[in-house]
Amino acid sequence: MCAPFSSNRTAMYTTEQLISKVNHAIEHLALPSQPAQLYEPIRYTLAMGGKRIRPVLMLMAYNLYKEDVDSIMQQAVALETYHNFTLLHDDLMDHAEMRRGIPCVHLKWDENTAILSGDAMLILAYQLFTQPGTPQEAIDTFNQATLGVCDGQQFDMDFEKRNDVQAEEYIDMIRLKTSLLLSCALKIGAQLAGANAEEAESLRLFGEKLGLAFQLQDDLLDVYGNPAVFGKKIGGDIVENKKTYMLISALQLANAGQRKRLEKCLSQKKFDAEEKIFVVTSIYNELHIRELCEEKINQYFDKAKQILNDLPLDEDRKAPLRDFAHRLLKRKN
Amino acid sequence: MCAPFSSNRTAMYTTEQLISKVNHAIEHLALPSQPAQLYEPIRYTLAMGGKRIRPVLMLMAYNLYKEDVDSIMQQAVALETYHNFTLLHDDLMDHAEMRRGIPCVHLKWDENTAILSGDAMLILAYQLFTQPGTPQEAIDTFNQATLGVCDGQQFDMDFEKRNDVQAEEYIDMIRLKTSLLLSCALKIGAQLAGANAEEAESLRLFGEKLGLAFQLQDDLLDVYGNPAVFGKKIGGDIVENKKTYMLISALQLANAGQRKRLEKCLSQKKFDAEEKIFVVTSIYNELHIRELCEEKINQYFDKAKQILNDLPLDEDRKAPLRDFAHRLLKRKN
Repeated sequence: MCAPFSSNRTAMYTTEQLISKVNHAIEHLALPSQPAQLYEPIRYTLAMGGKRIRPVLMLMAYNLYKEDVDSIMQQAVALETYHNFTLLHDDLMDHAEMRRGIPCVHLKWDENTAILSGDAMLILAYQLFTQPGTPQEAIDTFNQATLGVCDGQQFDMDFEKRNDVQAEEYIDMIRLKTSLLLSCALKIGAQLAGANAEEAESLRLFGEKLGLAFQLQDDLLDVYGNPAVFGKKIGGDIVENKKTYMLISALQLANAGQRKRLEKCLSQKKFDAEEKIFVVTSIYNELHIRELCEEKINQYFDKAKQILNDLPLDEDRKAPLRDFAHRLLKRKN
Repeated sequence: MCAPFSSNRTAMYTTEQLISKVNHAIEHLALPSQPAQLYEPIRYTLAMGGKRIRPVLMLMAYNLYKEDVDSIMQQAVALETYHNFTLLHDDLMDHAEMRRGIPCVHLKWDENTAILSGDAMLILAYQLFTQPGTPQEAIDTFNQATLGVCDGQQFDMDFEKRNDVQAEEYIDMIRLKTSLLLSCALKIGAQLAGANAEEAESLRLFGEKLGLAFQLQDDLLDVYGNPAVFGKKIGGDIVENKKTYMLISALQLANAGQRKRLEKCLSQKKFDAEEKIFVVTSIYNELHIRELCEEKINQYFDKAKQILNDLPLDEDRKAPLRDFAHRLLKRKN
C-alpha cells in the first residue's frame, strides 16, 4: 500500500503511512452483519476516526526492530478497538452528547445499545489481540492495560465527588486512564518484535511520560486552546469542576480571596457557564497556572525524550517515534 | 479439600465437590482492593452464589480425561466471572431490581458503577482465562462464546420490539444467549484436557442440547413453577410480553377468539399484572402449551443424553456429567 523508507537494516514507516495502514485495516475489519443493532454502532464508533495514536505507537515500536508491520495489524486494531470501547462507555457514563463532531452512540441509538455494543467491542478487542501467535508476554501487557484503564476511570469518577484531591493523586489517575494504554502499546510493539525486556520496558516508560505530557496538555488546551482547533468546547473541565492538575494547583496556591472566589464557583449548583469559565480562568491567570502546567508538561516531555535518546538503537531508526511525539505535543523541538 | 472417588484410571469428582472447589477459588480470588468502588461490586456479584453450572460443566468435561482439576481452576473461575458479568449488565439493561434475593448492583450502587464494574469483570474473566498455558484452541472457543452471548442478548432485546418472532428464531436466540456458554464450557474442559477434537465437539453438542432444554424449562417454570422453589416471581415473562417458545406457540395455535384475547393482553400499556398472568395462562392451558413445551424439553434432553451415551468413554466416568444433567433438569431418568 505504501513503501517505507529504509534505515540501515530495517525499512521505516512514517506516521502517515502507519495511520493509513491502520485505517485501511479498520475499514476492512470482518465484523458479523447480524445482529445489526449490535455491530452497526461498533462500525460507527470505529469509523469516527481520530489520530489512531495507540496502534501507531505500537507499530512504530515494532518497526524499531522489524519491518513486516502488517503481520501485527490485528493486534494494532485490537488496541484501537479497546480504546474506542472506553470512549463509548465513558461517553455514556459522562452523559456526553458529541464525540468528534457526531452524536454519541447512547444518543444516536439508546443507552442499552451503548452498553451492549461497548461490551461487544471489548470482546472484539480481545478476539483480535488473542490471535494465534500472540506471545504470552504481550497478552500479559494487554491485560495489565485493559484493567488499569478501568481503574483510572473509576478514580476519575471518585474524584468528582471529592474536594481534597491532591496533585499526585491526579497524576496517578491520568497515568492509568490515559498513559497506560499508550505506554503498553509501545511495550507490546516491542514484545511482538521480540525486543529484549529492558528495551521494551524503556519504551513503556517513554510512553508513560509522553502520555502524562499529552493529558496535561489536553487539560491546558481545555482552558487556553483555540476553539477552532481544539475540537471540544473550551472550558468544559471548569464547568464540570474537574479536579485537573490546574484546578488542584490553583486551590493550593490561592490566597484567601482567590480561594473564596474559586470555592464559590465550585459550589454553585446553578450558574452561567461563560461567567464561571471567565472567573476561574481569571484566577488561573492571576496565579500563573498556565505557566505552571506548561512547566510540568515540559518536564514529562523532556523525560520522554531522554528515555528515547538513551535507547541503544540507531538515531535514524528512532526518528519516526521522535517525530510522532513532537507532533502529538505540537512541539518543534 | 475433598477426595474424588476412583473410576478406572481417573479419579472422579462429584458435583458437590466441584461446586465446593469453585466457590473456594472464587472466595480466594485475588482482586485489587483499590479503587474500592470498582472491585466491591465485583466481589458482591461473585459472592451472590448460584449453581456455578458453567465452571462445574467445564471441570466435569476435563475430569472425563484428567484428574488435576485444580490446575484449570483459573479458567473455570473465568467462565463464572464472565457469566456474572453478563448478569450484571443484563440486569442493568432490563432494569431488574433483585438477583438471587439481593439488590442488583445498579440499585445498590448506581448505573455508572454497574457499567464500569461489569466492564472490569469482563476484563478479569479474560485475564483469568488467558493465563500462561491456556492452549490457543481453548482461547478460540472462549472468544466464540463471549461474543455469541452478546449476539444472543441483542437478539433478545430486538425480539421485545417485534410481534412476528418465529419459534426457530427464539430457539436460535436461546442457543446463543444460554446454551453457548454451557456448551463451550464443556468443549473448553475437553480441550484443556487434551481430548481429541471429535470428542470435544460431542461434548459441545451435549451442552448445547442440555442448555436448550434448561432454558425452555426455565421459561416453563416462569409460568408453572412453584413460587417457593423457582426463586423469581411467577409470570414475569408474561408481564413483559417476552416472546418465549410458549407465547410464540400459543399465538400460532390460537383460534380467532384466543388470538384476540392474547393480542389484547400483549397490547395493553396499563394492566393488572395478576389478571394478565391469569388470562395468558388460561389460554396456554386451553392450548396445552405446557405439554407442548415439555415435549420440546424432552426432545432436547433425550438428544443430550444420546450424545453422552455415544461418547466413547467408560460409562462410570460419564456418571457425574449424567447426574448433573438430570439434576439441572430436575429429572429422575
